[in-house]
Amino acid sequence: MKSKKEAKGKGLLSQIESPCQVRLLSQEQLLELAQEIRERIIEVVSKNGGHLAPNLGVVELSIALHYVFDAAHDRIIWDVGHQAYAHKLLTGRQSQFDTLRQFGGISGFPKRNESRYDAFNTGHSGTSISAALGMTVAQNLKHSNARAIAVIGDGSMTGGMAFEAMNHAGDLAKNLIIVLNDNEMSISPNVGALSSYLSRKLSGKTLMYVKRETENFLKSMHGVGSNLLQVLRRSVDSLISFFTPGMLFQALEIHYIGPINGHRIDKVIDALQTAREVDGPVLIHVLTRKGLGYEPAEKDPTSFHGVGPFDPSTGKGSNGGGRISYTKVFGMAMKKLADADPKIVGITAAMLQGTGLDCFAEKYPDRFFDVGIAEQHAVTFAAGLAAEGFKPVVAVYSTFLQRAYDQVLHDVCLQNLPVTFAMDRGGVVGEDGPTHHGLFDMSFLRCIPNMVLMAPKDENELQHMLKTAIDHNGPAAVRYPRGNGIGVKLDQELQVLPIGKGEVVREGKDVLIVAIGSTVQSAIEASEKLEQDGISAAVINARFVKPLDSELILSWGRKTGMVITVEENALQGGFGSAVLEAFQEEGFVPKSFIRLGVTDEFVPHGEQALLRNLCGIDSEAIEKAAQRMIESRHGKVLHAIGQTGRR
Amino acid sequence: MKSKKEAKGKGLLSQIESPCQVRLLSQEQLLELAQEIRERIIEVVSKNGGHLAPNLGVVELSIALHYVFDAAHDRIIWDVGHQAYAHKLLTGRQSQFDTLRQFGGISGFPKRNESRYDAFNTGHSGTSISAALGMTVAQNLKHSNARAIAVIGDGSMTGGMAFEAMNHAGDLAKNLIIVLNDNEMSISPNVGALSSYLSRKLSGKTLMYVKRETENFLKSMHGVGSNLLQVLRRSVDSLISFFTPGMLFQALEIHYIGPINGHRIDKVIDALQTAREVDGPVLIHVLTRKGLGYEPAEKDPTSFHGVGPFDPSTGKGSNGGGRISYTKVFGMAMKKLADADPKIVGITAAMLQGTGLDCFAEKYPDRFFDVGIAEQHAVTFAAGLAAEGFKPVVAVYSTFLQRAYDQVLHDVCLQNLPVTFAMDRGGVVGEDGPTHHGLFDMSFLRCIPNMVLMAPKDENELQHMLKTAIDHNGPAAVRYPRGNGIGVKLDQELQVLPIGKGEVVREGKDVLIVAIGSTVQSAIEASEKLEQDGISAAVINARFVKPLDSELILSWGRKTGMVITVEENALQGGFGSAVLEAFQEEGFVPKSFIRLGVTDEFVPHGEQALLRNLCGIDSEAIEKAAQRMIESRHGKVLHAIGQTGRR
Repeated sequence: MKSKKEAKGKGLLSQIESPCQVRLLSQEQLLELAQEIRERIIEVVSKNGGHLAPNLGVVELSIALHYVFDAAHDRIIWDVGHQAYAHKLLTGRQSQFDTLRQFGGISGFPKRNESRYDAFNTGHSGTSISAALGMTVAQNLKHSNARAIAVIGDGSMTGGMAFEAMNHAGDLAKNLIIVLNDNEMSISPNVGALSSYLSRKLSGKTLMYVKRETENFLKSMHGVGSNLLQVLRRSVDSLISFFTPGMLFQALEIHYIGPINGHRIDKVIDALQTAREVDGPVLIHVLTRKGLGYEPAEKDPTSFHGVGPFDPSTGKGSNGGGRISYTKVFGMAMKKLADADPKIVGITAAMLQGTGLDCFAEKYPDRFFDVGIAEQHAVTFAAGLAAEGFKPVVAVYSTFLQRAYDQVLHDVCLQNLPVTFAMDRGGVVGEDGPTHHGLFDMSFLRCIPNMVLMAPKDENELQHMLKTAIDHNGPAAVRYPRGNGIGVKLDQELQVLPIGKGEVVREGKDVLIVAIGSTVQSAIEASEKLEQDGISAAVINARFVKPLDSELILSWGRKTGMVITVEENALQGGFGSAVLEAFQEEGFVPKSFIRLGVTDEFVPHGEQALLRNLCGIDSEAIEKAAQRMIESRHGKVLHAIGQTGRR
Repeated sequence: MKSKKEAKGKGLLSQIESPCQVRLLSQEQLLELAQEIRERIIEVVSKNGGHLAPNLGVVELSIALHYVFDAAHDRIIWDVGHQAYAHKLLTGRQSQFDTLRQFGGISGFPKRNESRYDAFNTGHSGTSISAALGMTVAQNLKHSNARAIAVIGDGSMTGGMAFEAMNHAGDLAKNLIIVLNDNEMSISPNVGALSSYLSRKLSGKTLMYVKRETENFLKSMHGVGSNLLQVLRRSVDSLISFFTPGMLFQALEIHYIGPINGHRIDKVIDALQTAREVDGPVLIHVLTRKGLGYEPAEKDPTSFHGVGPFDPSTGKGSNGGGRISYTKVFGMAMKKLADADPKIVGITAAMLQGTGLDCFAEKYPDRFFDVGIAEQHAVTFAAGLAAEGFKPVVAVYSTFLQRAYDQVLHDVCLQNLPVTFAMDRGGVVGEDGPTHHGLFDMSFLRCIPNMVLMAPKDENELQHMLKTAIDHNGPAAVRYPRGNGIGVKLDQELQVLPIGKGEVVREGKDVLIVAIGSTVQSAIEASEKLEQDGISAAVINARFVKPLDSELILSWGRKTGMVITVEENALQGGFGSAVLEAFQEEGFVPKSFIRLGVTDEFVPHGEQALLRNLCGIDSEAIEKAAQRMIESRHGKVLHAIGQTGRR
């Protein structure tokens, strides 16, 4: 055994080059390893930001998984995936761990193209059981003995997809292993009947007593019929599992083991080894504590769920430079509008703080609903409220609204119900990367009849758009970016904007820049720079993707003859395409036309500004596009210049 | 009481003008009413087609619901909605019932704009609990005592959305009523652990015996500790509910009543009245038999789930005029391809016959998976298989793939996994109407990176495209229409088509028609008629929406100068927009350009041919568009003509 100094100095972690080395360690060394991993995670996350509390909660579980299973052969699938840091440290990525979440560095989520030990990419919640079941079936068909293990949080279990997968798993009866990582919270504290069900735990001692006494008792019985006796005997285990959370899973024909203290590596190893021998699907219920080992995170796991850089000695982060976030402005506007209108209801899918609904929820608890990680239900629940004359606002990240696409189309838009979608995190989200970027909403919402789709140029316009959406007697979505606003003054009086009307934010004669949402500010900056080059650029803030202000855009397009559209969205079927369609319908052919937006590739992780630059949608890209246009005009007239988007 | 003649002659049903009249009838009259409703349903469905078996199964349940609840005040929500015929007959739509599913007639699904008694539009499964919970919350906020009742099948219960809603309902503890209509099948016989769980029924007699004996027994006990005694006593009910399907719902804090014989009106009325008095969410488990009262449907409820017109005396329908359906061709091609490649796996979400996978499933049961009504899981399960080197084919209706949009994007395309989506029912589906039309897939799939999206011009090309999709090492979707092919010969040898390459199906010099999928045949027909008018039209079968064969389309666009695109999809961001984007990127401006497709409105129900005419995408519309173009050329040159789409 190593001396304490050695262990402290060079460390055990640094010696782990492959996960199979974990099983060579003694129990004591495993504890040391856990400590080292915690320290490394705190060190790097305090610098780079990231998901702190979830990762600190699964250090022992991660070690135990790699102790029992061979990640080179078996498949470990991390649901949501933001808790895979210890896994990354144990699977050959220590030297890159400093680059966590940075552009070009390792991802904050499992990525198959990053490591052979990452079996399946995750990001959104509730996918792991489906994927693991598919892999289990695949191993069966290949006659391989490799096992697939889904590690899923209790929050993700409230999502319907996990239920669908368990229902199928129980039916297939294959050797799937599910590890339920139960920390009694998803991102915000959990809601839902399932959650309270899972917490219904008797102590192990009481359980053993009940089990022993019942068995003795059945043995001593003579006065009852043998049918009943048999029924009672068979039901002893069921009876006990009723007092544990096992019943629900057993109803789905999934074996249940637990609950297990998830911070006792030995206990978790035992349970995993037992599970490996079970024939059929099995669920191990592991209790963990988010943020364990870092006091500020233990005390406030919600705030430490996902963090920016912070001072590890105090847990304090920077305050965002004094500018207010779009999320915060949305929350304040919701509260203000709700003050005046008792029909306004707020709905979130397990994102109370993330969506900024917390201040609304505090003031109007009866009109606030956190439905769990259940976007599908959230949207149709809202439709039910809207059908009864209420004005529900579903506050959701753009990327997660993808989960409720059918509900938006089939339950809200087909009935033309007045549901407002407050879509936060539209555009590139930054370090969380491709699973979380909201780059498709303009395309996938624009094709749905009855939908009104808008995006504000700044945080002040967001307020007015929220009022406009709620005021509109039909479906309306407001899409705004992650992060801080541009620092404008917030109007106290909220206005209803005319639906389908854009605004000219800057007049100009040489070129027209039609921007939407976050790109309006970039367009203004570009136009200012262009002015210095002697190019006069008009800028339109389109405000509405749908209905599009074709009239305004056409009239200015005709004045300048040259048009650039710019959007923080996929170019395929996006905002620029809407402008293109409008031009075609009106028979207008600009002398030159460039669409700037995200080309047909997924965008990696990295700082937002860097990604906008990479995608060719920042002020610099707009400026260059305009310059190119003008230069072509002085050379030969092009009817249109192929846009490039990403450079 | 009426004489038999009267009841037979004028009938009780004809006297029901408003549902509140149901409760004025005697038990005997209710039975007569049920019989009359059955006869009327069989009569009309045998003429118009429709969902026969599901409606025959819920006649008594529908009567009981209207007996206990006041549909003018309370809200009855029919999950999926294809079982609402009796409800329609009882709520003032008898005189229109002959127009069922016909263009301009009443819908086969509940429609809020059709009747005040239709509380919520449905079509897709699993939405009713969410909507009813939203309405229950709304009634609470309005201090109304109106109740919301979700009537949901056991098949829909396998969908995650229903679970999400129950989890929330259990948490909210509002007075929601759920009627579980358990016929042990969705459309095909049900799969999943839940289904076998629900079937675990003891007879009522045995249950009563167990309960009585257990209680006597507990009373007689002296030898055990009082703690244990208390535990046992409290668990008697739980014990019993373990042997009934109640446990699962009780775990979610939903009261359970049942199982009830759903064809005993008196029993169902009793149960509903009891449920109405329960404080908190309650589920009534009603057992029904699909097709009851019509022997052919009782014997084969799957075939009689949804039917075309048939002879009521024999149950036999027409055979589709000898032409083979796209669905059938897909199924045969799947089997043929699977013969040669053991890596091919077939997946359906409770649509074995509907998707045509039945012959594949029969031959390759180990490689076939019916996951229940669980599209989300189906797609990610496929992703898991694909990650292990298999070639899964998810066979799904276009409209239902909307349910798995996030899984397509996040789990399949982001990882660039080789999953094939066989999208049946792309385009207008006909009489099922707007909830079932598949008119958005080209728009919502085109914006996703890595996706290959194609649509065959006929049933023979479908075979080759299926092979092409499976052969492609990444996500690929093949979209084909509902109904019969055009009657071409089927090649025996299947070919891999070059990805992203279209074909010129007809040369011409005046105008280019670029068509995709079902519209190719219409374009050919139009070009033949145009020839008679002296207009020479070239026709391109684009084959691929993505990647688009820009080169081919551009070269022919340049030759003719006039371009018409035609698609059976939304114009917003659809196929025509893809062509428009390609032209813009290449700087090509046609002298005239028309996009034909579905304008920004939902399309009603009616015959497919009629709807294609209505949408302006049939051969007649194409012909007229070309004529208009040519006429303008002879007058003044238009740069583009505003497309019209729907006329």
